[in-house]
Amino acid sequence: MTDDSGFCWIDFDNARGSTLLGHVDPGITEAVARAATGVAGSATGWSPYVDTVLERLHALCGGEAVGLFRSGTAALRAAALAVREATGRPLLLSCGYHGYDPMWYPSGTLLEPNADGVVDFYFDLGLLEELLGTPERVASVVVSPDHMHLSPDWYREVRRLCTRAGVVVVADEVKVGLRYGPTLSTAELLAPDVWAVAKGMANGHAVSAVGGPRALLRPLKEVSFTSFFEPTILAAADVTLRRVATGEPQQAVREAGERFLRHARKALADASLPVEIVGDGTFFQFVPASEELEEDFYRAADAEGLLFYEGDNQAVSAAFDDAVLTDAEQRFTRVCDRLSRHAGSGPVSEAARYRVAWNVMDGLREAERDREATEGWLARLLDD
Amino acid sequence: MTDDSGFCWIDFDNARGSTLLGHVDPGITEAVARAATGVAGSATGWSPYVDTVLERLHALCGGEAVGLFRSGTAALRAAALAVREATGRPLLLSCGYHGYDPMWYPSGTLLEPNADGVVDFYFDLGLLEELLGTPERVASVVVSPDHMHLSPDWYREVRRLCTRAGVVVVADEVKVGLRYGPTLSTAELLAPDVWAVAKGMANGHAVSAVGGPRALLRPLKEVSFTSFFEPTILAAADVTLRRVATGEPQQAVREAGERFLRHARKALADASLPVEIVGDGTFFQFVPASEELEEDFYRAADAEGLLFYEGDNQAVSAAFDDAVLTDAEQRFTRVCDRLSRHAGSGPVSEAARYRVAWNVMDGLREAERDREATEGWLARLLDD
Repeated sequence: MTDDSGFCWIDFDNARGSTLLGHVDPGITEAVARAATGVAGSATGWSPYVDTVLERLHALCGGEAVGLFRSGTAALRAAALAVREATGRPLLLSCGYHGYDPMWYPSGTLLEPNADGVVDFYFDLGLLEELLGTPERVASVVVSPDHMHLSPDWYREVRRLCTRAGVVVVADEVKVGLRYGPTLSTAELLAPDVWAVAKGMANGHAVSAVGGPRALLRPLKEVSFTSFFEPTILAAADVTLRRVATGEPQQAVREAGERFLRHARKALADASLPVEIVGDGTFFQFVPASEELEEDFYRAADAEGLLFYEGDNQAVSAAFDDAVLTDAEQRFTRVCDRLSRHAGSGPVSEAARYRVAWNVMDGLREAERDREATEGWLARLLDD
Repeated sequence: MTDDSGFCWIDFDNARGSTLLGHVDPGITEAVARAATGVAGSATGWSPYVDTVLERLHALCGGEAVGLFRSGTAALRAAALAVREATGRPLLLSCGYHGYDPMWYPSGTLLEPNADGVVDFYFDLGLLEELLGTPERVASVVVSPDHMHLSPDWYREVRRLCTRAGVVVVADEVKVGLRYGPTLSTAELLAPDVWAVAKGMANGHAVSAVGGPRALLRPLKEVSFTSFFEPTILAAADVTLRRVATGEPQQAVREAGERFLRHARKALADASLPVEIVGDGTFFQFVPASEELEEDFYRAADAEGLLFYEGDNQAVSAAFDDAVLTDAEQRFTRVCDRLSRHAGSGPVSEAARYRVAWNVMDGLREAERDREATEGWLARLLDD
């Protein structure tokens, strides 16, 4: 990407990981331009694109019923309220970010619901198990999967606890869905009852989706909004879903990311810089040993034209070809050169790992800890 | 518009009145296609379009702070919660539709708040005055203006009551804003503290906006969503706002609508059909004397290829030129011919007028009535 001053950037933000195919993918550009001419339908009502997009989502993610929204925030609020109405149970047990809606703000008191009936368990399985002690009050457990700080076993345990309690699982795959492969990233691990996807489905265009059993999503039947049928967004979703169904863009992303990571880990080690990298080629995150190093790291990256999503997950796109990767590797080496004053500092502490995980998942990374430690970390991180 | 079978329709729905310039306006089509090539910015971050769109909105509608959302529903929820947080007062007094969010569903008991602290006063000034008896509990009065069933005096009285009570007014101009002229339709009448617009600002593309004083909208400062910077939507908004700023498309809409209305009223009278028409060329609504006539009316319109928004407001676009209008007039005459079995029936009752108004405004039309009559109409209409 080139900015107004002519400076060239390599984008690891990619609209928070939503431009999976890369910016201005020719297939998307052409489909959007074509849809804007009106040949594929109008915003007034139904067009074949609606069915195609819904059928593709159903084929990839399942769900007797599938609905479209305009943002992940809107999708999650709609899904959570629908499940609450359908089950007649008051509480939503939540972990992770589910959009900007204030309904998800934690109450301030551990294990207590906020005014919207939401209780945050911060990805802590001990807290979840306690909260599931009164399953008849729980409408659903709403999880935003993270594959950098949680292992497959974590999801299997959530599934086990929810099955035992007879509680519905909602997977908020707004960020990760369709990025790791041509389905939900937790399809096997969590087998969610209800799912939401967004960033993986339209290459940055404004659409999200919710799917699940008719009985749980029936309250969404009458939901409508003015731009529902707007054809350029449906066109972008149609092309993206056709492409991600092959698994090829996700494979390209993973391989490009892995190549970059091999170089980055070596460059950091060679420069004796205490920066860990968690995750894999699909999504990864830098874990600098100190906040001072973190600040210098992102300033150096800016100077070298590596556009990182500061403090959060980095996301290459399928457009990262050999030339881009070679360029990115050289730039990263120069970033390390700029950080020589931090050489030999460190090491990366558990506190740094918890802090960085909190930045990306709004909760506690998976680690062995007792209840006292959980409360200690929460007190510290919520205070930040 | 031509459907898959080759049948040609004249669109009076226009995406619920949002394609003000007409479908596939060349300026919009070109701007969207151009933005999809990436030359105007990317979804990763800021581009000059963001400032241009915000500046245009500020110039037209005012507001120290202006924010963008993806739907009217999202805009109104955000605005209402922000004002509630900023004022520290619990109640929202509401009239009219503010989107699909369940937070706006009436409680079921007159003058009682629902679980979200929302009390519906159904556009009844008597109920509003009662509710404003405890102004220290009221965060804001949220009004969706309707210019078919309410007079200018109605808004002036709301303004007077709110000023006297010291309560913030939020104008939900998602539907009407920028359609009646190059500003809020209630800028003078209601002088709202906070406003939302949507349908008038991007010709059917998925964006809405909220504006108002910084002190009231501060809680929205940190709101962000993935597609915020997506450039095709900003391009559509940029072109639309530039055009509506001239007032010319709105003038064209009004004149085209007025010409159609003159013909329609005469054709209905000539055929002795008891169908009133409320509103003006900008937005109008049919008021058939009976539900049987209403059903036959919309079936006949379908048969003649007049695509009306059934039971709701009709909206011509600036693309209605002489040829389209002449065609529409001829079709409407044939619609009347098809309804000959209803000739001489009627007249249109107050009940029919209340019912049709309720369809479009989710509340009570302006009319003289005492508290008993208000409760009677509400019991009847809420039951439907």
